[in-house]
Amino acid sequence: MTTIAVLGGGIMATALAMPLTDNGHEVRIVGTHLDREEIESIRNKGVHPRQAVPVPASVRAYQLEEAAEAFEGASVVMVGVNSFGPRWAGEQLAGLLRPGQDVIAVAKGMEADDGNLRILPDVMAEQVPAELRGQVTWSAIVGPSIAGEVAARRHTCVVFAGLDQAALDRLAPLYRTGVYHVWTSTDLVGSEVAAAMKNCYALAVGLAEGLLEAMGEAQAPDRNHNFEAALIAQGFHEICLMMDLLGGRRETPYELPGVGDMYVTSVGGRNVRVGRLLGAGVKFTEAWERLGRPTLEGAAAIRVIGGALPRLTERGVISEADLPLLRHLHGVIALEQPIDIPWSKFFRGEQ
Amino acid sequence: MTTIAVLGGGIMATALAMPLTDNGHEVRIVGTHLDREEIESIRNKGVHPRQAVPVPASVRAYQLEEAAEAFEGASVVMVGVNSFGPRWAGEQLAGLLRPGQDVIAVAKGMEADDGNLRILPDVMAEQVPAELRGQVTWSAIVGPSIAGEVAARRHTCVVFAGLDQAALDRLAPLYRTGVYHVWTSTDLVGSEVAAAMKNCYALAVGLAEGLLEAMGEAQAPDRNHNFEAALIAQGFHEICLMMDLLGGRRETPYELPGVGDMYVTSVGGRNVRVGRLLGAGVKFTEAWERLGRPTLEGAAAIRVIGGALPRLTERGVISEADLPLLRHLHGVIALEQPIDIPWSKFFRGEQ
Repeated sequence: MTTIAVLGGGIMATALAMPLTDNGHEVRIVGTHLDREEIESIRNKGVHPRQAVPVPASVRAYQLEEAAEAFEGASVVMVGVNSFGPRWAGEQLAGLLRPGQDVIAVAKGMEADDGNLRILPDVMAEQVPAELRGQVTWSAIVGPSIAGEVAARRHTCVVFAGLDQAALDRLAPLYRTGVYHVWTSTDLVGSEVAAAMKNCYALAVGLAEGLLEAMGEAQAPDRNHNFEAALIAQGFHEICLMMDLLGGRRETPYELPGVGDMYVTSVGGRNVRVGRLLGAGVKFTEAWERLGRPTLEGAAAIRVIGGALPRLTERGVISEADLPLLRHLHGVIALEQPIDIPWSKFFRGEQ
Repeated sequence: MTTIAVLGGGIMATALAMPLTDNGHEVRIVGTHLDREEIESIRNKGVHPRQAVPVPASVRAYQLEEAAEAFEGASVVMVGVNSFGPRWAGEQLAGLLRPGQDVIAVAKGMEADDGNLRILPDVMAEQVPAELRGQVTWSAIVGPSIAGEVAARRHTCVVFAGLDQAALDRLAPLYRTGVYHVWTSTDLVGSEVAAAMKNCYALAVGLAEGLLEAMGEAQAPDRNHNFEAALIAQGFHEICLMMDLLGGRRETPYELPGVGDMYVTSVGGRNVRVGRLLGAGVKFTEAWERLGRPTLEGAAAIRVIGGALPRLTERGVISEADLPLLRHLHGVIALEQPIDIPWSKFFRGEQ
């Protein structure tokens, strides 16, 4: 039996308690300052407020101030905070980690600093003092994985990605069950970049329905699937280009973290809903307000990665003609420009 | 103005009259022996019975016995018969083609002959005597393209693929409009293989909902999207392997004919519906009967390509471990075996 301390009481971290406890491991979930109610609910009612499936009785839940107790004796630390909390999570880990622990993160995303794009596991790790940072291992879970389905024990295929193959080989068997299938990859950068970028294009897929509404064809028998498919194909083309630029392996986005993940993100969710409002002609800020100011990983990824493109172009890393869809999405989201898909620039502009 | 003779009165051929006539070209549609009513409907009512958008008034419709008249003076011949008619279409073309014509087909698919997989444009061209065959050019339209949406003038991005770049450069401008976007590729084999194989995996995506029904979870809040995404990713992995085997370019399936086309085929249609019945536990023959014995390109592709795999394995072209999902789909469709997804063999089996 292995003890896994989990930082973050969100639905993905809680869902991943299922395969771990199904394998007989001890799971200790530590809520962030935003998860107080979730932790109380798990403790008192055995359920997560946003998850249908009950939390296994063996899972122990801790408030943030009890974190040290939860981390005591844990050989694995799973970081379940979302894409917006890696810096905060890293600061917490700085005081909680012990040499020899394997850290595995569920957050996916990128940050930009003057055109230098960085993956979130790196941002998190950098908050930990260098010596301790080198005494633990850093990995991440990527691939098409809706939390509720993991909790409901639906078949799910994911990749554990990290630089340390030995750590991946320790971690994967803890999680593997008859329904939770785990592969490993040492292409951490490629996996994270593909996982982050697919959110941009999933939001773009939502534009299709909104544009039909704007044309007064919301009820038309002919939908806009050709449009969606074209944006997915161009999005995939742009992800592949980024692999080359950022040092990811070419084959990484062809499998679970890319093509699989883009599919599952495109079939629904908040990113697609905000895209639909944008397609219907609503400006981004208003669309975000209308949806109740939700966390929008697609819009965040567009701001960060799209926002870095002009600087990368200036530096000659990419050309003006590269990533036309992501550039346009940045214009629509960050600058509230009207939608005008740059079709003729797609696929190397060789139309 | 260019004259385009069209062999086949199906909905895709008719839909493609829209961009052609929007560009001022003359379109002459010749029905097959199965299209008599469609041709009468276009002639007398100006509509195709299975298409909402009216056929442009300038389109002329011919019965098969009037084909010679329709082909007179045409510089382009578009073949609109579906994947099951390339041999018949080729036999017709043998008597109708004239040197110098550019032929472009909308059918996608493959045939197998003792383990030798061949693309349908080749099967069609082989019915034409060798001398005449070399005096015309052969191309095909691939990419995510639902006919009704093309007819409704929704944005659609496709690839014209063929061995003769000059012919592609003549053909593409005839079709290009502000909504019908055309790229060209000389990777005809890769484009056709990707286009044919995606149908196999789109059918597999349908299994997900059926399996939920079989589990009594048809109404459950947690769906089976992780399952669908994993099958899409593995399908894509298998398509990429076939590129290497059959001489297609590695990058071809990463764009419109692969990732884009797989998306649009997976969102709905008969292939997905039959997959759903299979997932629910219905045997293939019964599922096909229940749906009214429709043309099922996915099932046909699984029979042909999946059926060729044992022979390719014997010959050492592929190994036993290659293409586990397609092998399993062949067992389910052709041999009516129960569904038992070979998860552990996915992605090179390195789980």
